Amino acid sequence: MATTGIRTLDWVDGAVELIDQTQLPHRHEILRIETVPEMVDAIQRLAVRGAPAIGVAGAFGVALAVRAYDTDGERLDEAVASLRAARPTAVNLARMVDRAAGVAGEGFARVLAEAMAIRDEELAASVSMGLYGADLVSELVPDAAIRAMTICNTGGLAAVERGTALAVVHTLHERGVLREALPLETRPLLQGARLTTWELDRMGAAHRLIVDSAGPFLLARGAADVVLTGADRIAANGDTANKIGTFSLALGARHAGVPFIVVAPESTVDSATASGDEIDIEDRGTAEVVSLAGATTAPEGTEALNPAFDVTPADLITAIVTDRRIIRLDRGQTLASVPLGDLRC
Amino acid sequence: MATTGIRTLDWVDGAVELIDQTQLPHRHEILRIETVPEMVDAIQRLAVRGAPAIGVAGAFGVALAVRAYDTDGERLDEAVASLRAARPTAVNLARMVDRAAGVAGEGFARVLAEAMAIRDEELAASVSMGLYGADLVSELVPDAAIRAMTICNTGGLAAVERGTALAVVHTLHERGVLREALPLETRPLLQGARLTTWELDRMGAAHRLIVDSAGPFLLARGAADVVLTGADRIAANGDTANKIGTFSLALGARHAGVPFIVVAPESTVDSATASGDEIDIEDRGTAEVVSLAGATTAPEGTEALNPAFDVTPADLITAIVTDRRIIRLDRGQTLASVPLGDLRC
Repeated sequence: MATTGIRTLDWVDGAVELIDQTQLPHRHEILRIETVPEMVDAIQRLAVRGAPAIGVAGAFGVALAVRAYDTDGERLDEAVASLRAARPTAVNLARMVDRAAGVAGEGFARVLAEAMAIRDEELAASVSMGLYGADLVSELVPDAAIRAMTICNTGGLAAVERGTALAVVHTLHERGVLREALPLETRPLLQGARLTTWELDRMGAAHRLIVDSAGPFLLARGAADVVLTGADRIAANGDTANKIGTFSLALGARHAGVPFIVVAPESTVDSATASGDEIDIEDRGTAEVVSLAGATTAPEGTEALNPAFDVTPADLITAIVTDRRIIRLDRGQTLASVPLGDLRC
Repeated sequence: MATTGIRTLDWVDGAVELIDQTQLPHRHEILRIETVPEMVDAIQRLAVRGAPAIGVAGAFGVALAVRAYDTDGERLDEAVASLRAARPTAVNLARMVDRAAGVAGEGFARVLAEAMAIRDEELAASVSMGLYGADLVSELVPDAAIRAMTICNTGGLAAVERGTALAVVHTLHERGVLREALPLETRPLLQGARLTTWELDRMGAAHRLIVDSAGPFLLARGAADVVLTGADRIAANGDTANKIGTFSLALGARHAGVPFIVVAPESTVDSATASGDEIDIEDRGTAEVVSLAGATTAPEGTEALNPAFDVTPADLITAIVTDRRIIRLDRGQTLASVPLGDLRC
């Protein structure tokens, strides 16, 4: 199984080690996390981020909780609840915390094994998404020089390795058919500018950074052949919650007649949520919008409205690619109508 | 005639004085400009910006040129050409430079008088746009609590005083019917975060800042009743060049069924340009994108694609409001079909 060599987080010598993504691209620092409050803090301040990655982080967090509170049911429950609620939008976090907590009664070793299984499944899922996605892109864009636009960071840093949408870009690059990636910088926290460019650099893929609002216009001017995005939660009807700005790109892709493809593991599909209207959109407050790295961008006292995610309606999505299937929404397929296929590797 | 008291630029004691907009909101500095190269530099590095404002600045620049090079035809021509070409997208600059240069043969005093006339006309135009625009908004949104979304800075700082789209917001506020303004921060140069918030503060209007890519989603969620934008050039068919991100907002407004109104003086209408396809889009290079408020946002060596403007097709525009008329594109009216009306004040 090909990997990028960026392992975002792992269990190392009795603790979780993860790349502190708030420090990239300027510093490559490893955080060592030994307690649940440290893990909750790391998730909340986005030291670890990306739906698959925080799912794995949450599962390891449950292992830390069981090690600390073993027989104390109430304290364990509180710790699990704090992990589960660290961020509201991505379904993976709650789901993987629940899965690891489900075996808590069997003790620390069993929970740790479950968390490691989740880690390994997410890694295999990334490889499989890359292969399914690259095949679909080559079918939709029969061109050996593909220009792919993408938002936020959906690479190895957002998963265990390789990622979701950026795994597809990576596979296209490995196959020699990627001409250029156009990452959006992704305000307010600049995951595209800071993290995706860093990963594209490491994989040796040509790329040019753009501001978020240039995406739809550049699509209208024919600058890209496909849009590839990740997802934080996919509702039963295909509506997709993802980083703020995804919806604008979907409108731009539709206007330009460019395929808009969502790439996410099956763990991101939330059949219990009927549609996007039911998805809780996290408002992350004023500070992120009015400042960056200590620099202030607006007058003192300015208030911001800061929805961190948006919802792209299913009817603007060409296809959803998971680790086990391709759902062609543009052909009337649905999450309910397309059965799970094999994992590819 | 009501004004905000922010006079962006003027002729003072034999030179042009202008607010250095690169220093706002942190410092309120006045630049004193005595030569053409200083003026070209001020325009290029956006110390003065906004289509109407750079038109006036260009005209004053011609006065500086005539004072310096009076009888030297070739040096005068070169100076005029350098002013004219300082920025390519806004039509006002070339137009006002040409108008002032057209009387250069009559000497410095005559050119200065022409530049002052241009200044006064732009100020009167701002007042008139505010009145026409506010009437239209109240007709389209019959609500006494209007929430208006806007991009870039189109206020007094972009004109002589009051501005274009923000003049409409100002008039709505003075009439007591503005509930909230939602300015987009406007990457890469943050004119919305730095300048529009500053002006809204000064006029005492409630506002919350948003990142650019949140605009279309917030429209979809019903957060605003109208979108008001300025223009750098309006083609004969109504296609409008404006700050990058305007096109995304227009797509979002159409999707949400919210009126999308372009506000610009007649001096921005360019009948010689048939459609948006003919408009030169300035690429301002990598540096602006990879830094934000002085901090570096991307890895060393990252290249950017940086279109500073986009073109919104006429069919996404509800109406164009100028200082002399309202053109209801949504009702099939065109720039050719609606005659000039009176200036309002």
